[in-house]
Amino acid sequence: MVASLPEPVAELVAALGRLPSIGPRSAERLALHLVQGEAGQVKQLAGALLNAREKIQLCETCGALTESQPCNLCTDDQRDDAIICVVETAVDVINLDKSGAFNGRYHVLGGKISPLNGVEPEDLRIAELDQRVEQGRVREVILALGTDVEGDATSNYLAQRLAPKGAKVTRIAHGLPAGSGLEFADVLTLSHALEGRREIT
Amino acid sequence: MVASLPEPVAELVAALGRLPSIGPRSAERLALHLVQGEAGQVKQLAGALLNAREKIQLCETCGALTESQPCNLCTDDQRDDAIICVVETAVDVINLDKSGAFNGRYHVLGGKISPLNGVEPEDLRIAELDQRVEQGRVREVILALGTDVEGDATSNYLAQRLAPKGAKVTRIAHGLPAGSGLEFADVLTLSHALEGRREIT
Repeated sequence: MVASLPEPVAELVAALGRLPSIGPRSAERLALHLVQGEAGQVKQLAGALLNAREKIQLCETCGALTESQPCNLCTDDQRDDAIICVVETAVDVINLDKSGAFNGRYHVLGGKISPLNGVEPEDLRIAELDQRVEQGRVREVILALGTDVEGDATSNYLAQRLAPKGAKVTRIAHGLPAGSGLEFADVLTLSHALEGRREIT
Repeated sequence: MVASLPEPVAELVAALGRLPSIGPRSAERLALHLVQGEAGQVKQLAGALLNAREKIQLCETCGALTESQPCNLCTDDQRDDAIICVVETAVDVINLDKSGAFNGRYHVLGGKISPLNGVEPEDLRIAELDQRVEQGRVREVILALGTDVEGDATSNYLAQRLAPKGAKVTRIAHGLPAGSGLEFADVLTLSHALEGRREIT
């Protein structure tokens, strides 16, 4: 017989390999590390997995990760109800909020419109956004999506769809990232940066 | 309040971040994927983790991964007891055996001698190797360790240590990998390849 991975290890490799950005080699390395490592570490990881999966849900209002309904961001009365910032994923909320530059409410779409990947507007939380804009006294909707083709298309789609509802629709600025020089920027970033130029007062 | 990862997610990120070659960003991405993914997938992963950790042990004879003692490779009576192939890790056994070029027994050291990292000969399964060579009718010990400095040092150490025990000690060939051209090989590989040249008959 030829040596092969024992069945339980092969199963673990398969389960790890189904995770995003974990290839077959990484999955094998991780599995072998886990199998040979401390039993405590493995138990802790398995426990953390089950615990997180069980306790975490998406906020029914904004779509952010939360342990309670609605989430802390939606119930926080220090936040401005009149501005909604639309993002792709639940993590974007956290990253954007860390910047401290926004104190309104969030709305997570759950992705971008991408017909090639079978993601149509009705697969995203766009109807929920409509509702929030219609019901609330929303003054401004800030679109904070990615700057790729799909991000652009989704932003344009949302701008058109939200226009009749009375709220101003804006998009976050595209330009040179902080701490970077012109020499590191691609032409598209530079053209965005030029288009978005503002007068210094 | 500023948005942050809910506690169960933060714990999962921390647990994933302790795995080898998973950085903080990867850990976060994986955690968010798992938390938002199918509950079934998460349960399966957690189950595979616990199952593998519980069932898998190292063979007391050769050090390979196994579900039973001794392992299938050590009990397989089709294999040649007179040749032992020494490797660093339990995975090396599997990879080497897949090649089909070896039909003897294996011995896993569990690492390389590396005084800088605090790995001394007594931290490896070298005493066990001594014993196997002394007890058995071992004709040849093949050293199949890495080609880095520590692999070289460990190979030399083992060759000296095993010399008085009567078995021939050999080392696997170093040279050009299969399917590669000279233009992709570094000078050390090329010098090994030259040194190891053989007459074509």
